[in-house]
Amino acid sequence: MTSRKFKPEWTEKAPEPGTYRAITKYGDPNHFKHPSDAWVKMMQQEFHMSDADFSAKRNEGNEKVILNRPPALKSEQIETLASIVGKANIELDDYSRVKYASGKTTEEMLELRHGIIREVADVAIHPRDKDDVQKIVEYCRQERIPITVFSAGSSVNFGCRPAKGGVSLVISTHMNKLLEVNELNQTARVQPGMLGPAYEEALNKAPEKFGSKLRYTCGHFPQSFEYSTVGGWIVTLGSGQASTYYGDAYDIVFSQEYVTPVGTFKTLDFPATATGPKINDIMKGSEGAFGILVEVTMKIFRYMPENRARFSFMYPTWEAAVNASREIMQSEFGKPAIYRISDPEETDRGLKLYGMPDIADKFLVMKGFKPMQRCLCMGNVEGDRDYTGLVKSKIKSIANKHGAISLGGYAVKKWEKTRYTEPYMREDLEDYGILIDTLEAAVTWDNLHRLHDGVRAYIKSRPETMCMTHASHFYPQGTNLYFIFIIKMDDPEEFRKFQRGIIDSIQKHGGSLSHHHGVGRMIGPWMEKHLGKEQMEVLRTLKKHFDPNNIMNPGGQLGLD
Amino acid sequence: MTSRKFKPEWTEKAPEPGTYRAITKYGDPNHFKHPSDAWVKMMQQEFHMSDADFSAKRNEGNEKVILNRPPALKSEQIETLASIVGKANIELDDYSRVKYASGKTTEEMLELRHGIIREVADVAIHPRDKDDVQKIVEYCRQERIPITVFSAGSSVNFGCRPAKGGVSLVISTHMNKLLEVNELNQTARVQPGMLGPAYEEALNKAPEKFGSKLRYTCGHFPQSFEYSTVGGWIVTLGSGQASTYYGDAYDIVFSQEYVTPVGTFKTLDFPATATGPKINDIMKGSEGAFGILVEVTMKIFRYMPENRARFSFMYPTWEAAVNASREIMQSEFGKPAIYRISDPEETDRGLKLYGMPDIADKFLVMKGFKPMQRCLCMGNVEGDRDYTGLVKSKIKSIANKHGAISLGGYAVKKWEKTRYTEPYMREDLEDYGILIDTLEAAVTWDNLHRLHDGVRAYIKSRPETMCMTHASHFYPQGTNLYFIFIIKMDDPEEFRKFQRGIIDSIQKHGGSLSHHHGVGRMIGPWMEKHLGKEQMEVLRTLKKHFDPNNIMNPGGQLGLD
Repeated sequence: MTSRKFKPEWTEKAPEPGTYRAITKYGDPNHFKHPSDAWVKMMQQEFHMSDADFSAKRNEGNEKVILNRPPALKSEQIETLASIVGKANIELDDYSRVKYASGKTTEEMLELRHGIIREVADVAIHPRDKDDVQKIVEYCRQERIPITVFSAGSSVNFGCRPAKGGVSLVISTHMNKLLEVNELNQTARVQPGMLGPAYEEALNKAPEKFGSKLRYTCGHFPQSFEYSTVGGWIVTLGSGQASTYYGDAYDIVFSQEYVTPVGTFKTLDFPATATGPKINDIMKGSEGAFGILVEVTMKIFRYMPENRARFSFMYPTWEAAVNASREIMQSEFGKPAIYRISDPEETDRGLKLYGMPDIADKFLVMKGFKPMQRCLCMGNVEGDRDYTGLVKSKIKSIANKHGAISLGGYAVKKWEKTRYTEPYMREDLEDYGILIDTLEAAVTWDNLHRLHDGVRAYIKSRPETMCMTHASHFYPQGTNLYFIFIIKMDDPEEFRKFQRGIIDSIQKHGGSLSHHHGVGRMIGPWMEKHLGKEQMEVLRTLKKHFDPNNIMNPGGQLGLD
Repeated sequence: MTSRKFKPEWTEKAPEPGTYRAITKYGDPNHFKHPSDAWVKMMQQEFHMSDADFSAKRNEGNEKVILNRPPALKSEQIETLASIVGKANIELDDYSRVKYASGKTTEEMLELRHGIIREVADVAIHPRDKDDVQKIVEYCRQERIPITVFSAGSSVNFGCRPAKGGVSLVISTHMNKLLEVNELNQTARVQPGMLGPAYEEALNKAPEKFGSKLRYTCGHFPQSFEYSTVGGWIVTLGSGQASTYYGDAYDIVFSQEYVTPVGTFKTLDFPATATGPKINDIMKGSEGAFGILVEVTMKIFRYMPENRARFSFMYPTWEAAVNASREIMQSEFGKPAIYRISDPEETDRGLKLYGMPDIADKFLVMKGFKPMQRCLCMGNVEGDRDYTGLVKSKIKSIANKHGAISLGGYAVKKWEKTRYTEPYMREDLEDYGILIDTLEAAVTWDNLHRLHDGVRAYIKSRPETMCMTHASHFYPQGTNLYFIFIIKMDDPEEFRKFQRGIIDSIQKHGGSLSHHHGVGRMIGPWMEKHLGKEQMEVLRTLKKHFDPNNIMNPGGQLGLD
């Protein structure tokens, strides 16, 4: 039924402009990363799929987007908005309205492939600068027109969905420049719509572009790096893959400027201050519900890739990997930058998918590193050269103490090459009815196993369901768990039910509702239970203060309404 | 006129119970640290004081406190409050009412020595636990009775002053236990009224007291360590002397439980979370104006004093010291724990006061380290042994590059011994009409010299005024400046005018209003200008949410009313 030679006919063509697929496809329309033969083999085995099952694509979304919903805004309102930003910067066509209403939530993508369109805005507007934003917010405040910000659209929780219509405000089109590198303070002033790669490149080239003495790095590299923006990182509380050293988005913000319906303000530029609750921190994570981030000063770091020290280890068990990682994070010799441990299922699938030779596998088994017990760990250390050497050697010695075997730096280098491209496989798999999705949570060390066991048990209780888990952001007090599940399913309703069950299970087992994906509309309904009524009321009070008429990203964002 | 043999007759007796002096005296009533001969010589020279001037003490505050203000609360109210906490835990006498209305603000101390009593509460109440606090807050909410928290009373900005009367709620009397050490999470659950030394000792002895494997440290050592509480550190945003490594109080809080007029809640226990603006952070720095901190989970650290690496350097100039310090903080080889640089005036006075031998001075001058140019730097490194060695050697090499000469670890050891006892000298000096006070600010690197020059110029514009400045809390983006001024003055009104001028000068020259002293009532009037109207309104909105009837520390705290 299956043959080794068989290769599915993956789509190798950019989506036709104006189609659903042009919206759902991840990243560069002309870039593809197809599942390897090992991937196909795994799918066929797990889901009992024949070659024939990989021959007929379904719900590709190649149809033109047709909305058939005339804008609810009055024509005078549209004209006034156009007069603010200029005619070239306002779009009313069906495709734009749907595109800027969509993130990259699995459910969203699945529905779009079925031609299901949820709420959209009436117009998409591309402000040229913060003055435009201010005028738009002021006008929308007067006219009670909802505004939902679209930045790069990598949200995985309906964060960009204009639940109440109105305006999709597209920040990344024009407001995407690095304005200043302050070498004394080691800060960069940047517009919120700047994409990760452009920001990082400008910092790396600071001597050429800004006349600085040194090169800098932003220190923030989420998997969505290529299709996420600096502002998006902050307002959704993202974390980069090297956050264990550089900190989460929360930590690397120095000051921010917001436009809100009750006024525009810039938070203070101090490295620390004891002048009451910090407005700079109150705004982080506000997900467009309080106001619009229009400029930000970020902390930056010296760019010293030549000093990077890479490592990888195989641990005999998940428990050993967790214990060693905790010891590493609490030992006070410094911190690694990237640091990840994979649970047994992720480890074994990873070894197969990335082609570990049979002989290496046999060697590992002989040494006592057994399938579905052993766990891969990998990472790197960044910073000063002697520091990276010290931290790496300390990590190695703790790993050895916990029974790990060193696998060298090769696995990390290989991982680094594909770290941003994994999401490209999604279209290919969905073409054959397979969904990959992820949910994640923060957790303290003392609750890690309960959360891992509990959520994994829920996911695996569904037949033919793969579940790979890793921890990838570490703190002395705990880490995150990142659950990746792969299922053969193409009914949006069935998906919704299963996926919401995972969120329930995370909450039930004491994980936070999100470590770095944010809340959006998807997690919103769990927020009150998560925070408790008293704390939820604090967020609602702030919302009411900044946005008394509920025009900023209204309709469920953060669970506020 | 002055003679080498002369020694002022310092007070060597604990203040009489019930006197003003029993309130104003710092720390242990039976402990004294008198100014050295070198101190007296310096005072005599600077202020042109004769031995006779050091013979007649003034305004010692040895009189009994007499208030003559009957409580404004009704007797039923007092009875109800007494029934909540028990009769033994409520005090109505004049002395207690004044004592628990006072912090350690210089102006406050000066006024009390003159017998001037400002606002006091009607009763002082000592809650036994968080249930008592909840009942008191609920009753006071119903009856509109103001509550001002007194913890250990080390406030230097009228933070404990019950500006609207009502209740002084004394948290440190009973709510002062370490409840739990969670070794897996490296956290400690503690009651807010626990004093620094008891908390640190319990953590150091965690194996004996809590059965942990390792010993721990709190990592937070402000100068007020011996007379400040864990809760006080958090609600005023304090910083310890080792904050450059361990972080400010803001950073070392894991979660908190608050009793507010609109409900009691505990913030989430996660090492990080992307679920909207963080309530845990919103509460920090609220200075008793939102609610009462009743329990806190703190991050703790491994206690490894055996690994400490100490260093001190003399830099040729302030600029060299600042430049080297910036390079150290931005070089990414790790961070020192204690790290301080003294400006030229502080350096030279320090050398004289702590008795540098003449020959050493001559050697320094010969080497080009000239008086009123040279600057002392000192500190230590904590953590893993190899880490402390690495960081120390890196600091040394950067210091050398900037022209510093190493003075070894001796100065630090000497400083460590007296780090908490400096405030004891205050009484002695005030007995002879000399005031020492401090104001401090956070600042970015690019504004450091402007702030230092500007504020120093203002202070020095007053004749016969000493001004010593250091930076003692460092970040990659900047540091703090700590201005110590010594003046011969005993008129409270004159003092107030001069001191408020310094705050004006800090604001004018772009410093934050406080790096770690907090706001209280003293800095309150500057807050709106500091934050701007829009951001001040955010604080007022939060205040109104938590405390709609304005009973929590009302009357100017944080500049809220």
